[in-house]
Amino acid sequence: MVAKYDLVVIGSGPGGEKAAVKAAYFGHKVAMIEKLTLYGGAGVHTGTLPSKTLKETALFLSGFKEKGLYGVERQLEHEVTIDDFLFRKDVVTAFANKEVHDNLQLHGVDIYTGEGSFEDEHQLRITGAQEETIYGENIIIATGSYPMHPEGVPFENNRILDSDSILDIKRIPKSVCVVGAGVIGVEYATIFATMGCKVYLINRSDKVLPQLDSDVRDHLFETMREAKVDVLFNTTIEKIDVPDSDEEMVKLTLGSGEVLEVDMYLFAAGRNGNTKSLNLEKVGIPVTKRELIEVDDQYRTTVPHIYAVGDVIGFPALASTSQDQGRVAVAHIFKTHDLEYISTILPYGIYTIPEISMVGITEAEAAEKGLDVCSGMMHHQDTMRGKIMGVKQGFVKIVFTRDDLVIRGVHAIGSLATELIHYGMLLVQDGKSVMNVISSVFNQPTLHELYKYACYDGLSNLTGKKVKS
Amino acid sequence: MVAKYDLVVIGSGPGGEKAAVKAAYFGHKVAMIEKLTLYGGAGVHTGTLPSKTLKETALFLSGFKEKGLYGVERQLEHEVTIDDFLFRKDVVTAFANKEVHDNLQLHGVDIYTGEGSFEDEHQLRITGAQEETIYGENIIIATGSYPMHPEGVPFENNRILDSDSILDIKRIPKSVCVVGAGVIGVEYATIFATMGCKVYLINRSDKVLPQLDSDVRDHLFETMREAKVDVLFNTTIEKIDVPDSDEEMVKLTLGSGEVLEVDMYLFAAGRNGNTKSLNLEKVGIPVTKRELIEVDDQYRTTVPHIYAVGDVIGFPALASTSQDQGRVAVAHIFKTHDLEYISTILPYGIYTIPEISMVGITEAEAAEKGLDVCSGMMHHQDTMRGKIMGVKQGFVKIVFTRDDLVIRGVHAIGSLATELIHYGMLLVQDGKSVMNVISSVFNQPTLHELYKYACYDGLSNLTGKKVKS
Repeated sequence: MVAKYDLVVIGSGPGGEKAAVKAAYFGHKVAMIEKLTLYGGAGVHTGTLPSKTLKETALFLSGFKEKGLYGVERQLEHEVTIDDFLFRKDVVTAFANKEVHDNLQLHGVDIYTGEGSFEDEHQLRITGAQEETIYGENIIIATGSYPMHPEGVPFENNRILDSDSILDIKRIPKSVCVVGAGVIGVEYATIFATMGCKVYLINRSDKVLPQLDSDVRDHLFETMREAKVDVLFNTTIEKIDVPDSDEEMVKLTLGSGEVLEVDMYLFAAGRNGNTKSLNLEKVGIPVTKRELIEVDDQYRTTVPHIYAVGDVIGFPALASTSQDQGRVAVAHIFKTHDLEYISTILPYGIYTIPEISMVGITEAEAAEKGLDVCSGMMHHQDTMRGKIMGVKQGFVKIVFTRDDLVIRGVHAIGSLATELIHYGMLLVQDGKSVMNVISSVFNQPTLHELYKYACYDGLSNLTGKKVKS
Repeated sequence: MVAKYDLVVIGSGPGGEKAAVKAAYFGHKVAMIEKLTLYGGAGVHTGTLPSKTLKETALFLSGFKEKGLYGVERQLEHEVTIDDFLFRKDVVTAFANKEVHDNLQLHGVDIYTGEGSFEDEHQLRITGAQEETIYGENIIIATGSYPMHPEGVPFENNRILDSDSILDIKRIPKSVCVVGAGVIGVEYATIFATMGCKVYLINRSDKVLPQLDSDVRDHLFETMREAKVDVLFNTTIEKIDVPDSDEEMVKLTLGSGEVLEVDMYLFAAGRNGNTKSLNLEKVGIPVTKRELIEVDDQYRTTVPHIYAVGDVIGFPALASTSQDQGRVAVAHIFKTHDLEYISTILPYGIYTIPEISMVGITEAEAAEKGLDVCSGMMHHQDTMRGKIMGVKQGFVKIVFTRDDLVIRGVHAIGSLATELIHYGMLLVQDGKSVMNVISSVFNQPTLHELYKYACYDGLSNLTGKKVKS
């Protein structure tokens, strides 16, 4: 007897979990196939949560937030160990793992442990812990991604890491070379720099993080350089020599012939879709060369009752977006009429130190669209709240069209950037103008006052007349 | 020769400063009369900034944010001294003092040092450091407030404090009795409790902080009790005995006859308007029994060209609101047409530990208005961001009308409450519904996700069906 479901979801990461739970909430019979006995996918176990928790831990352990701020010095009772560093991550992921599992159970989702692959357009063969075939009237693929491994990099060595195995290190590296200045690369580079490691950040070109506002990007690399990160753009690594002994350094021969000696090596330049074991050929769903699945704006694949959400469909590959992709897919499958499309105004967050967030367009994008824009900026350290915190970095920048003063984009870097952006998200969503912000009252002292003063600065830039007031 | 001005502002606090600077920015001739050689008023020197900075310092010094969160313990190198406690406050207020002074100078405002009093409806006599009479075509009174001193309390003793002299203490008290569970009282009670002092909080009645949502109020007093604050409602103090020696305790005889022994005593039950020295009788402007000036919604007194803003007009007596009152007054005086009225949707923040903020209406207010409302709530500790931070306290609660799901009020307590509320301010201002929030994407992990899950909880309460997803 093949068990029949209204919906089968493959993968319990952020997108898969929310899809399964929502469908079950609306009364449908749902199965979840998860290959691990851990729930939550990369969102919980390798990506979102672990790196964000390590960021907080690094900040805490390094005393970063406190340096020179008070009339009293604090010290660690002992040297920071890898256990200190990983302790909170383990607490948080254990909690999140349980949360996901409980949420699935609470909603009556049947959980199958094993790897799912297509036998035909409706039947999925489960192999592994459980061996079974189940039937899905509808199917959502939410299998996530895995770190790409370029040829010639000896990942079998425990000092040569990718964005998953970085979480298994057994000691804090003395120095580390991070390859790839994308989101994952810059996040880990700043985390290790904050922990006091010597960090080299290497990128093939100098076109990095193109989605960011250029002032934000400059501020990020400037603060990285201040934190003694060696940022090497237009640089390639030709050869990696790993000595037998952990006491000796890994030798990296650069394209220039120069040799870099580091304790560990982190390859963070790209992740591929987890599609290999799905047997997609059987149902005729093609994959890209990054092994990703292409979908329409309802998250539907080329087979009408098979959907895909999350990292397996590529950019933006953020936990937050993946969750809503799952919810939107379910809205279309079961016509729940509650969430037809994912919001077009999405916040984008990078958990570097300092953290970064943006919503709406950059000045570069405005230029492409032929919009005549102006901008205003306010730095954390020039606000009362910033003074109280003693921060030296960060700003909020607003981009608005000159003719109507409507705010088109907000770009933030520094303390609370990923929180602050949500106020800006509503401004951009609703076409609010600089004047709307100026006539709003903000709690004082808060960092949200950055918005008001960035708007005053914007008016000042527009008129050439000093209006900081 | 009497110097003539388009506008004379009395007092350089938040309201006075912004009014003077704005009028000068628009090209008018402006004078500022400030009795101190310090600028910024209570906002900088006794109220807003100092208490908020002390709050941060208390949190930092006590390690409050860190207890049990990491696999490593931290210790202070030495016992916390009063200098540690006051260090950052002094840094911040010195900065703010200079900022206000520079802002006035930058805009070409003439500064007079001395006390201003009315000679007639346009002429102000300045006495003190400078002795001079100046003429104002228009006048804004922004003289602030001072702590009320009830009879029988020996404030001349340096262990009997009011909300100004608390900033001059020379040592950290072993124990303190705070009288008055209003905003100032609860702020200082939680600051001292966080510093490890034994705190008694006494209030005449049990009707405290009536402006707050009842769940928020309950959570505040619950966390205070957990922090070992003795909260004594419906309690009066009949007698205060201050011994000669600081080694002996101050004896407080309560209405019940019970005697409380404490190291210091802080009277925090009310501030009066600074109007005594203005000679208001000369121009016929009446004051209330709390010595406050009454104004219309343009901040105009009974004399058409004389305005009043800030603490001297009473509630809400917040730096943020006072600034916009100053800006609005100037808009009316000089017809600048940029800010005719202060926003009716104001954020309200209390910098207790945990901090509190609200916007829009409470359930109690909804009932008074005959609105049929429902609510939803999400606790910090049930979110991923909360888990990463390891917080145990706090929540966001939304109040919405049942028929249209429109959000009418947001009530927050806990980490970042005063920041988080601004997103809610736009929701309430623009009549957004629960569904708008649910269909928004939030950065993950952030505390702004509290909004999304509070809305799911709200729907669940509305339908009686579990929808946390």
